[in-house]
Amino acid sequence: MRFSGSRFVSRVRTAATLTQENEKKVKGGDKPQGQKGQNQKRSEEAVTPRSQDFSKWYLDVIEKAELADYGPVRGTMVIRPYGYAIWEAIQTWLDARFKETGHSNMYFPQLIPYSFIEKEASHVEGFSPELALVTIGGGKELEERLVVRPTSETIVNHMFAQWVQSHRDLPILINQWANVHRWEMRTRPFVRTLEFLWQEGHTAHSTPEEAEEEALKMIHVYESFALEEAAIPVVTGRKSKLETFAGAVHTYTIEAMMGDRRALQAGTSHNLGQNFARAFGTQFTDDKGDLEYVWQTSWGMSTRMVGGIIMAHGDDTGLMFPPRVAPIQAVVVPIWKTAEEKEVVVEMADQVHDLLKSAAVRVKLDAAEQKTPGWKYNHWEMKGVPIRIEIGPRDVEKRAVVVARRDVPGKAGKTFGVSLDGLDGYIKDLLQQIQDSLLAKATAFRDSNIADVKSYEDLKSAISEGKWARGYWSGSDYDEALVKEQTGATIRCFPFDQPSVAGVCLMTGNPASEIAIFAKSY
Amino acid sequence: MRFSGSRFVSRVRTAATLTQENEKKVKGGDKPQGQKGQNQKRSEEAVTPRSQDFSKWYLDVIEKAELADYGPVRGTMVIRPYGYAIWEAIQTWLDARFKETGHSNMYFPQLIPYSFIEKEASHVEGFSPELALVTIGGGKELEERLVVRPTSETIVNHMFAQWVQSHRDLPILINQWANVHRWEMRTRPFVRTLEFLWQEGHTAHSTPEEAEEEALKMIHVYESFALEEAAIPVVTGRKSKLETFAGAVHTYTIEAMMGDRRALQAGTSHNLGQNFARAFGTQFTDDKGDLEYVWQTSWGMSTRMVGGIIMAHGDDTGLMFPPRVAPIQAVVVPIWKTAEEKEVVVEMADQVHDLLKSAAVRVKLDAAEQKTPGWKYNHWEMKGVPIRIEIGPRDVEKRAVVVARRDVPGKAGKTFGVSLDGLDGYIKDLLQQIQDSLLAKATAFRDSNIADVKSYEDLKSAISEGKWARGYWSGSDYDEALVKEQTGATIRCFPFDQPSVAGVCLMTGNPASEIAIFAKSY
Repeated sequence: MRFSGSRFVSRVRTAATLTQENEKKVKGGDKPQGQKGQNQKRSEEAVTPRSQDFSKWYLDVIEKAELADYGPVRGTMVIRPYGYAIWEAIQTWLDARFKETGHSNMYFPQLIPYSFIEKEASHVEGFSPELALVTIGGGKELEERLVVRPTSETIVNHMFAQWVQSHRDLPILINQWANVHRWEMRTRPFVRTLEFLWQEGHTAHSTPEEAEEEALKMIHVYESFALEEAAIPVVTGRKSKLETFAGAVHTYTIEAMMGDRRALQAGTSHNLGQNFARAFGTQFTDDKGDLEYVWQTSWGMSTRMVGGIIMAHGDDTGLMFPPRVAPIQAVVVPIWKTAEEKEVVVEMADQVHDLLKSAAVRVKLDAAEQKTPGWKYNHWEMKGVPIRIEIGPRDVEKRAVVVARRDVPGKAGKTFGVSLDGLDGYIKDLLQQIQDSLLAKATAFRDSNIADVKSYEDLKSAISEGKWARGYWSGSDYDEALVKEQTGATIRCFPFDQPSVAGVCLMTGNPASEIAIFAKSY
Repeated sequence: MRFSGSRFVSRVRTAATLTQENEKKVKGGDKPQGQKGQNQKRSEEAVTPRSQDFSKWYLDVIEKAELADYGPVRGTMVIRPYGYAIWEAIQTWLDARFKETGHSNMYFPQLIPYSFIEKEASHVEGFSPELALVTIGGGKELEERLVVRPTSETIVNHMFAQWVQSHRDLPILINQWANVHRWEMRTRPFVRTLEFLWQEGHTAHSTPEEAEEEALKMIHVYESFALEEAAIPVVTGRKSKLETFAGAVHTYTIEAMMGDRRALQAGTSHNLGQNFARAFGTQFTDDKGDLEYVWQTSWGMSTRMVGGIIMAHGDDTGLMFPPRVAPIQAVVVPIWKTAEEKEVVVEMADQVHDLLKSAAVRVKLDAAEQKTPGWKYNHWEMKGVPIRIEIGPRDVEKRAVVVARRDVPGKAGKTFGVSLDGLDGYIKDLLQQIQDSLLAKATAFRDSNIADVKSYEDLKSAISEGKWARGYWSGSDYDEALVKEQTGATIRCFPFDQPSVAGVCLMTGNPASEIAIFAKSY
């Protein structure tokens, strides 16, 4: 996974200047803060502007904000602490929600006998090309090759078949946090990697209705996460048959619009019907004493969501994390020129830090000597910290601070003279405002980039403009494949949110009961 | 990992009777609770008595309490929800402590180029026989075989070497939660499995003193976990050279005494010196401008600790979990004979459940119709729940309950007429009492099973009695190997807690400055 050719080159870059605003501030004094101010130029950390080259911007922020790095094996990724903290925010929220909805965590072995994968026909077809195989263990060639888990339906069913006897053993509602491997050819950090981290829920039920209800419940959990935590206004719906998970009856999905308007499948929930149960003999005795196969679901969200959060927000300057998932929600930057000033501003900065920390704000105090305030402003902006709190000597006198919003650039986002009294409440309210504002902005962006189309011509032109196309669809698998071939777009989903009346298929002119959304995707 | 030959046979077992006490209770009424009382005999869940066959008892509780099951690949384990909950308790406590001590979580790829393992001489020697190798990816033979992570020092150093330039980049303090594989021949659930879950901390420092301090700090974190949470009075100390981690300068360990008096190495912390740094070129410029290799540590605790908690506590009846790590801390069992009684007792049981839940007690209400109270008592005792709360019709009248302690069998552990008012506080205090009591009991057991020895004869006789032997030691590696060969015991550690005076080596008669502890171990 060589994201770009300029790996670590940034270390030795020089040149360029601080922004005008920061230049003024820093050069205002006779004893500028920071011993190494001269070499701390903006460019050292500057990223390719998002509006100029989205893909390059993405790789730049991942490198420069130290979200991830390249593993030694092609396509693998090292998730660095700043990136991993976002995954931890995802984990914490989802894990609590899974438990509230009655699920328990457990753990299945990663190594799966190759024969298991072959048991379910569409599953083996879907996954075979992507498998990593262990063939040697303890110095010896193994009798049976072992698959490094690409997903766990097969081994889960091997165990469920042993645990389930009667309808009283059902439902089984479990989840595991794990790593999985898929031997992908084209990789991109977080979005598609050879190994990724995820959770996979697996459930077994005694009726098809219960399985369907579960599959829908869990896609709505993902939808809630996207909306409430990630500030991403996903479109939730059902996958087309062609795009359904290998082995599932239905796949539900949340589709997110990235900053470049590509779609990202950010979480899926599958109604597996009895497909795996039949392949593995997962049967139970129902209340009439008859043997029946269980009905199942599986559902997952992965570190891909971290990529989604990065790409759904941000601007030319860098990252812009929604407060609820931001590793750091507020950074405190003290500003001084003299040693005397330093003492008082750092003391107050400490107070502010402690005040916010005890209010459960994820706050960082950046009192480093070696960096100028201007460098710090740029650094934490690039890293997407929602709120910056500046404290200079005059602020200390007034027992007040300057608060700057990451999502409102420049003077407009700055509030001067915010009192220390009640600052914790002020910051918490502002974090919520920023959260809401990012969601509103992303929603407006999404809505202005979905075109309602009535014909294939309309669809083609929408896609060629980079938009999502939404229209009635009752085409065949062949028609769907043709769209993909000719436009590069696929059906992302048939949204749950449907018009109340039927219509006419944009492709065939036949009656169509549903609209579909087409888009190019990651 | 076929733990025993009786896999799932228990499902079809019949016979035996409820205990006398429970028989009385259940048969007292004309309409016994539970439709299927006849088949709910104690034996269905009974485990081999611990005093009779410790090893069989261990495998029995793991199966019958549904802590774990056998994976399809030899030596692999499925961790079931009741067992995984203990791992989650370990994770939650450790993760918070790691963060308090300045560490961040991150994630390194699982697949490591084979050449990495070969770079550090003692490391490759230590791990080569145990490796699982991926040789096929995406349908193709790979150019270089990939090692499925047995531990991450090599890939960590590959990355650290890129991240570290200057002393200002140090220290690096990170941790990862991950799965690892070691191709073990003799396995035992939780204690030694082909795949296990763990955390591995990795740090890099600019001085040897700082690395040593870190290694010691982290072994003390593990020690605190063992004492405060797991109620296991571990012996903390330094490993002998022979028992030191492959690639480390020093290994520190916590050694726990199991119920059969075998030792279990339950957590280790390694001072790696500059060994991996030299192998991977992990260098920094110090404050004088000179290039130097970093000093490193690594430290880990794994799902093996779950096995340690099981084996350190318990009795002939089954498990006995320390409250702080117990998946369920209190179970509420309502007792009724008639439908009218059922209504009132279940209503009060619900109240008790909600009261305790809101007091953050992990509580379960067992109001199942199909099981008798006696069956439930035995079931939850076997599963090691620290407190049982019984509620019958007369208790409802008195607005009081019966509270039974798992760690004090029979009448002596029962308190009648505990008022509903303040029950939450009462239960929380009692949980703490039980926690303290388990630690005290385990400490007394440990202390009465460590023999102070002055000669090799003493040592042999202590070991043959199943005890740990503690004595002055300055023997050679050869002497140490001889003890192992002749007695089956190894040096578990040189404890940090040492006598104030030097002595005479039990083996050689030479002066010895330290005592060592010898024991048979898992």
